Amino acid sequence: MATIEHVSPLAPNAFPDLPEIGGVTFATAEAGVKYSGRKDVMLAQLAPGSAVAGVFTKSATRSAAVLDCQAKINLDSDQGAAIIVNAGNANAFTGKNGAEATFSVTSAVAASLEIPEERVFSSSTGVIGEPLPHEKITAKLAELKSSLSGSNLSNAAEAIRTTDTFAKGSGRTLLIGGKPVNIAGIAKGSGMIAPDMATMLVYIFTDASIERAELQNMLSDLNTQTFNCITVDSDTSTSDTLLLAATGTSEVDVTHLEAFKDALHAVMLDLAHQVVRDGEGATKFVEVNVTGALSMTDARTHAMAIANSPLVKTALAGEDPNWGRVVMAIGKSGAAADRDKLAIRFGDILVAEDGWVSPDYREQAGATYMKQDSLSISVDLGLGGETATVWTCDLTHGYITINADYRS
Amino acid sequence: MATIEHVSPLAPNAFPDLPEIGGVTFATAEAGVKYSGRKDVMLAQLAPGSAVAGVFTKSATRSAAVLDCQAKINLDSDQGAAIIVNAGNANAFTGKNGAEATFSVTSAVAASLEIPEERVFSSSTGVIGEPLPHEKITAKLAELKSSLSGSNLSNAAEAIRTTDTFAKGSGRTLLIGGKPVNIAGIAKGSGMIAPDMATMLVYIFTDASIERAELQNMLSDLNTQTFNCITVDSDTSTSDTLLLAATGTSEVDVTHLEAFKDALHAVMLDLAHQVVRDGEGATKFVEVNVTGALSMTDARTHAMAIANSPLVKTALAGEDPNWGRVVMAIGKSGAAADRDKLAIRFGDILVAEDGWVSPDYREQAGATYMKQDSLSISVDLGLGGETATVWTCDLTHGYITINADYRS
Repeated sequence: MATIEHVSPLAPNAFPDLPEIGGVTFATAEAGVKYSGRKDVMLAQLAPGSAVAGVFTKSATRSAAVLDCQAKINLDSDQGAAIIVNAGNANAFTGKNGAEATFSVTSAVAASLEIPEERVFSSSTGVIGEPLPHEKITAKLAELKSSLSGSNLSNAAEAIRTTDTFAKGSGRTLLIGGKPVNIAGIAKGSGMIAPDMATMLVYIFTDASIERAELQNMLSDLNTQTFNCITVDSDTSTSDTLLLAATGTSEVDVTHLEAFKDALHAVMLDLAHQVVRDGEGATKFVEVNVTGALSMTDARTHAMAIANSPLVKTALAGEDPNWGRVVMAIGKSGAAADRDKLAIRFGDILVAEDGWVSPDYREQAGATYMKQDSLSISVDLGLGGETATVWTCDLTHGYITINADYRS
Repeated sequence: MATIEHVSPLAPNAFPDLPEIGGVTFATAEAGVKYSGRKDVMLAQLAPGSAVAGVFTKSATRSAAVLDCQAKINLDSDQGAAIIVNAGNANAFTGKNGAEATFSVTSAVAASLEIPEERVFSSSTGVIGEPLPHEKITAKLAELKSSLSGSNLSNAAEAIRTTDTFAKGSGRTLLIGGKPVNIAGIAKGSGMIAPDMATMLVYIFTDASIERAELQNMLSDLNTQTFNCITVDSDTSTSDTLLLAATGTSEVDVTHLEAFKDALHAVMLDLAHQVVRDGEGATKFVEVNVTGALSMTDARTHAMAIANSPLVKTALAGEDPNWGRVVMAIGKSGAAADRDKLAIRFGDILVAEDGWVSPDYREQAGATYMKQDSLSISVDLGLGGETATVWTCDLTHGYITINADYRS
């Protein structure tokens, strides 16, 4: 696995101060699953009555832990719950042994915390095709249990890293009827897929009170506007997992409450952007806006075609305002477009319109704009009223270096 | 535009000896459309009675020349015909001016050769968004006309290059009822898209006799097995053009003749492979085979997901037998797959089966195999009887260097 010495140039200055969430405690340990000299396992314990919602990879070759989570996520329960995550081994493409290894971990956590096994959610991230050394994880459960604390969330963010160049966290506190409601989340991911099948993992916690089914609806809806709108390399992990737990300790019911949904949206978008900012080799953070589409599907198809085009992404890396490649990406996407109605902007600079370069456009203005490290590409299709926004990064020599390295 | 000093390590040793095709003559000239000191325009004249068939890019932002060819390709005619091609300017995304520039060229060729304008097919390849200096091309028509010769096909292959590192040609001669029938073709392309919207252009000529509609059916069918099965970077040009002309001078009718279709298939596949071998930055030529699919569409979807995955392609560049990324690509493709029924081979080496790494697989065997410059990845899905084969190259620092260079 490539050793990452540097921190992404697009990283935030520091890990944020996150609010403590009542009803959740965290612990981390050095289990030595693959890495040595660092924490590589995290445990979160959720108080009885917590609602848990989740969204998972659609990969047809998804991992044992994802399949196990999916089987459990729609159960209603008043019991306590737990989340256990290891870095270094993805337990993916490991046959029947993989499911047995996952059960070894989840059943040991359940016994240790005295909760039902079906309330223990697990994730594994790292190399694939190698047996998960589950006994290394279960050997640490006593140590993990004894160190559970509400203030350990930043350590948890550190423990789930694989090739991430920085730990990712985001939080919000809002007042509802004078009572504080807190949300805090952590994520890992540096590429939709990092070397050796690493993964995007996201865990968000709130002390809001809400039924499980309502929480799931909110999470699924917001996921389509956040994590489903980012792409680093168009590849999809076998292990992507997003879990949201609501403990209810704030005693504030947030069902159908837009202010809460907006705050959750902000946390999810912040974490999604941090994953892009840690994209392998990334030097530019890029927002792609498509407007004027006949349908939302068309708008998203065009936006993703631009965001995933190797030629657009290498031009961004080269700080080249190569609008011709944007035209190409729109043309190839398969969604409706009329060449002679397109308007293309880099930032606020109108580059092309009416099927040709804008008469007011000056190449020097585009080239100067491209030197920024946060960029936007906007395309108006001129056909309808639907829109989409997605986020991506550039494609650089750094991506090749990280991913062409031999694994061992 | 990046200057390519080297020749692809995957290039053939030499341009092949191609048979002369009765009824076709070629000429090239230095028009100075963009390049200086090299031939950049080629003209082919076709004898009266020639049938012309074509296949074009499906891009919604296709170029003026492509739109013009598409309007002409289904016309039956006994008149002579011509093909005129320039390198250096794609005349794409140039608004109404673009269509006028194309007409300036095609009508001047028609007048010069005394044929109808609707029998003149044109292609332009190079930078987009800049007006085509059509007067530089038409100024050379007298010179081109005076130098038309049946032996100029290799010069034509040279003249249509943009970022290609070698000229591409292929030919076959077969005997039908004791009479020789000849096929010769040339191609340009180094990436489905090269820098600045360069393009895949292919021109194939035969002295066989066949009706236009039959020729079109044969071309469209073979295209799905050849040029539609190659990918360098998943991007699609605005200008891709494949033209096939049959002059009939051999006086051999090849309608429904499998031997002729097989020979044409061989020429098209050879040219398609040469385009991949000149893929930008390519160091590995890779065949991807998918078997055992429920449908041909599923087989092709999986094969293209593997061939286009940046993580698979960077692993190939790193000579890393990273079968986990093949599993990932199958999982994300969206087509039917069962993780526990997959069998994956690198060359003849069985790597994974039954949802896990094969017990007989040794990493060293995979690593040794990956050092070859021609590789195959085979996946059996174990679900049905349908298959697909596609060809691609690896993703290297060379691709980034070529495409992240500033255009000017």
